Amino acid sequence: MQKSTGKRRRRPRGGKGSASLKFIPLGGVGEIGKNMNVLEYGDDILVIDCGLMFPDEEMLGVDFVIPDPAYLMANRDRIKGILITHGHDDHIGALPFILPRLDCPIYATRLTLGLIRSKLEEIAPKYELKAHEIAAGDVLEIGCFKVQPFSVCHSIPDGVGYAIYTPVGVVVHTGDFKLDPTPIDGRATDYALLASLGTKGVLLMMSDSTNVERDGFTPSERMVGKTMEQTFRLYRNRRIVVSSFASNLHRIQQVIETAVRFNRKVALIGRSMVANVARARELGYMNVDEDVFIQPSEIEGFPHSRLVVITTGSQGEPFSGLVLMSRGDHKHIKLGPKDLVVISALPIPGNERLVHRTINDLFRQGCEVIYEAEQNIHVSGHASREELKMMLSLVKPTYFVPLHGEYRHLVRHKQLAEELGLPSKNVFVMEKGDVLSMTKRQARLLEKVPSGAYIVDGRAYSDLNGQLLSERRDLAEDGLVCISAVYDPAGNLLAPVSIESRGFLHRADADELYRSIEDSVEKAIKAAKAEGKDEDISSRIRSAVKGVLKRFSMSAPVILVLTNEVQSGNGFACKFSRREQIK
Amino acid sequence: MQKSTGKRRRRPRGGKGSASLKFIPLGGVGEIGKNMNVLEYGDDILVIDCGLMFPDEEMLGVDFVIPDPAYLMANRDRIKGILITHGHDDHIGALPFILPRLDCPIYATRLTLGLIRSKLEEIAPKYELKAHEIAAGDVLEIGCFKVQPFSVCHSIPDGVGYAIYTPVGVVVHTGDFKLDPTPIDGRATDYALLASLGTKGVLLMMSDSTNVERDGFTPSERMVGKTMEQTFRLYRNRRIVVSSFASNLHRIQQVIETAVRFNRKVALIGRSMVANVARARELGYMNVDEDVFIQPSEIEGFPHSRLVVITTGSQGEPFSGLVLMSRGDHKHIKLGPKDLVVISALPIPGNERLVHRTINDLFRQGCEVIYEAEQNIHVSGHASREELKMMLSLVKPTYFVPLHGEYRHLVRHKQLAEELGLPSKNVFVMEKGDVLSMTKRQARLLEKVPSGAYIVDGRAYSDLNGQLLSERRDLAEDGLVCISAVYDPAGNLLAPVSIESRGFLHRADADELYRSIEDSVEKAIKAAKAEGKDEDISSRIRSAVKGVLKRFSMSAPVILVLTNEVQSGNGFACKFSRREQIK
Repeated sequence: MQKSTGKRRRRPRGGKGSASLKFIPLGGVGEIGKNMNVLEYGDDILVIDCGLMFPDEEMLGVDFVIPDPAYLMANRDRIKGILITHGHDDHIGALPFILPRLDCPIYATRLTLGLIRSKLEEIAPKYELKAHEIAAGDVLEIGCFKVQPFSVCHSIPDGVGYAIYTPVGVVVHTGDFKLDPTPIDGRATDYALLASLGTKGVLLMMSDSTNVERDGFTPSERMVGKTMEQTFRLYRNRRIVVSSFASNLHRIQQVIETAVRFNRKVALIGRSMVANVARARELGYMNVDEDVFIQPSEIEGFPHSRLVVITTGSQGEPFSGLVLMSRGDHKHIKLGPKDLVVISALPIPGNERLVHRTINDLFRQGCEVIYEAEQNIHVSGHASREELKMMLSLVKPTYFVPLHGEYRHLVRHKQLAEELGLPSKNVFVMEKGDVLSMTKRQARLLEKVPSGAYIVDGRAYSDLNGQLLSERRDLAEDGLVCISAVYDPAGNLLAPVSIESRGFLHRADADELYRSIEDSVEKAIKAAKAEGKDEDISSRIRSAVKGVLKRFSMSAPVILVLTNEVQSGNGFACKFSRREQIK
Repeated sequence: MQKSTGKRRRRPRGGKGSASLKFIPLGGVGEIGKNMNVLEYGDDILVIDCGLMFPDEEMLGVDFVIPDPAYLMANRDRIKGILITHGHDDHIGALPFILPRLDCPIYATRLTLGLIRSKLEEIAPKYELKAHEIAAGDVLEIGCFKVQPFSVCHSIPDGVGYAIYTPVGVVVHTGDFKLDPTPIDGRATDYALLASLGTKGVLLMMSDSTNVERDGFTPSERMVGKTMEQTFRLYRNRRIVVSSFASNLHRIQQVIETAVRFNRKVALIGRSMVANVARARELGYMNVDEDVFIQPSEIEGFPHSRLVVITTGSQGEPFSGLVLMSRGDHKHIKLGPKDLVVISALPIPGNERLVHRTINDLFRQGCEVIYEAEQNIHVSGHASREELKMMLSLVKPTYFVPLHGEYRHLVRHKQLAEELGLPSKNVFVMEKGDVLSMTKRQARLLEKVPSGAYIVDGRAYSDLNGQLLSERRDLAEDGLVCISAVYDPAGNLLAPVSIESRGFLHRADADELYRSIEDSVEKAIKAAKAEGKDEDISSRIRSAVKGVLKRFSMSAPVILVLTNEVQSGNGFACKFSRREQIK
């Protein structure tokens, strides 16, 4: 029939059958960090994850960055809930800043919820959480969506992905995952569910792209246990210090179990290490006897061969346990030639220098250090290429959106999907704010929604903006010179010109320069007055100072000019105070 | 005879036979960069290399760092010459700043000397170089030393190591090297000389530690040629853009030769790329016909499959050729889906983010990119572990000092030497300024000499010091608030309080805060005057402002206070102007 008409028939658009499902990433694409995704159909919105990101070195003085919540704020009445995949900061860290403003229910597994509660208690203690504890296998009705969390392996326990049944079709969000066939807690990624979903038909899959550049399979977490075992055997007579992420509870558990087998006690160092282990034990995620532990204050004098210290600082974070030790500044432990330090983590991109500095300083303390270059002392929590292929092959989605990656990772993941036979037009490399609209028949990108980065400086949700950051970069580049001049209406100085500098040559080192600046300021004021150009005084001072600086050095500090004209007469009267500041 | 006395006899110290040779690293140990070493015997000093280092991100606004020349300046009359190993910046980059002050002869091979001349012309054009062109195999008498440069392979042509015959024994300095058995120019590392030196006996060897963490052998530079060949075949229809270090002339030559074989023309982009290729051709280090090249202005409209573009920017340097292309800002070339970009270099540690940003932006332009993750598109210029072992086995030195590495590399290199049988006490992990004193019989560390880092900011040799850098970090962290107040002896304001800020909330965004600061300043002045505590005015203002800032935000900007007291009377008179500044 179709053939005879020579045309393909289309159902009319906008009919009930073609109502569209929208997927909008608000973070975590084109970047690794601050994951936040939106799924909407009709009046119902589901948010998936709400994470933060650590700033790059150009964001001077910024503590961290969160997704711009503007789109969610504008649509807050439609939000039915926030689904959380797991308890890492790049998935939950923005909740304390954003959740109180949205005030909607959140859905998370037990451990994840515990970590969220800790964060909220610290930063937004007054907010009353509307929490739903969920578990893999549950089926929840949220708005028009049916939501089924499923277990995935990752570098923190209790991670889930989500299968979301929508009126248009099934959506699978993998969360951060690897396909570890021998997980520490026996809780493998749920292949069976993924396969059955794939068989029935999946409209859209979003998947983790972090390790798409790595060939093969990511080794099992259990591999690290074996390496630990060998290491403990080899360094039987040394005290062993292990540094890892405090959230990597399976790693920590393996270190503790190895310690017990080798008849060693364990001391925990670092606030988050102590807190996370306590929480994991309390919630039943770690089964360890209390008498395994000794207090940090008991480390001194404890026999080296009988002790393991587990500490924070694997990223070289200033003031962390390991960094204090590397500088000989830790109050409870001094390292030396009888110590072995094992850094069971890789530097997160951008942290390389801090980590390397810490390793160098540890060697300076005389201890032996096992670190990134060595094999199997750390494994990643993210799937490598073969696992990503397997995920794509199991789920066989009609449409595919790579998530959790810089732009290059997303492109490589798209190419991988194409190698597996997905048509190029069905794979979408999305940027923040892009809107993918899907019906049962087609998918297309619509106009962007507001998105971007919000900067958190201090504890407050700050309106620190791009301009302030660029000002900080200017200050950092060449420092600052600040000029203050007080003069009368005739242009006579009423006090010596004040010059202050920061991050620029000090007066003690450049007295001649400072005197030349003073002269140039006085002349500039006089000249402006003589020509009747009062309004130009500040800019003339600035030009004059700039000229002097150029003659004396090649650097161009920020110049701040504060001028005060004070009028004579019966007593004093303020005439005006002008300020101008130009770099 | 000895045995019968029950004692070992010693020659008296200080006699002619036991005069000591000193080795002093002034840079390049505990860091990768700014290599500079000193060898001295009696009144004669030889310097080996004089390099710079790029600053880490904490050195705000610093262009680069050079070794502290204090020790050399204090001993300049004893310096017989500077030997240069090769033409990379970390070996020659400090010459324009240090050489004019020492004004001693330098010894370098032809290409290296050409690169040194370029640097001096740019930065110290008036200095008249006292240059000696040397070649591998020469034997030079310099002071009491006999110096024999020998060829080594590295990622720049014409590199040498040095065998230095001293009254105490032979010293071997490997320079930066790899043992490439199939070098592009047929000029292999001189195994024969090293073996014969080893057979006769070498007192001290200093060796490159850069790649001590890498197992096996570093592949030959020729490997990259093969990969290029395959790449050109695979992407026959695309325009190919290759980015590499401008100093890696063999790499560039291989790209050009491949282009010629595939019947493509070559366009060079980037100032240093154009300059280095011109210099290499002029000095006979690159044999390429002029008609291979087209001008950048001819790129537009040139058939894609007939062109190769070779550009700077492999480290993501701002304003470099590749970075401009990645942003769509290059005036001569717009990239798109018909382009392939090959980044034939690895990010230098610390440059990862810039390089990754460039790769992401290139993908955004729609082109395909081959980069670090892919095999054999780049090989290192430094020896891996098996080569380092071979060097130690050939030369068999009595004493060994690992050079050219962060502290961890030096320790690993020491461990490697110990595995090969060198006694631990004969291997010295040295830090900058350490002095190793050797006679024929013993070696020991003496007291340090002055050493450290000098910072170059702008073109001038600046006395920018640690305090200025920490001030810049403070400014960068939270910005700055600057307060100026003019008042009479009674504490009455004579002009409104002036407040300026940089990198901190602007008045437009925080008017209430600014008004509170003004009030607090006025009150602080009044209070100090009322209590007759004139000398406390500035610090009281500072405390008051600090308090207000704390109440309004969690951040702590630098606070600058400039106060001016102006006295009334017949006309005006300046009483005093105090300034105080505390963070």
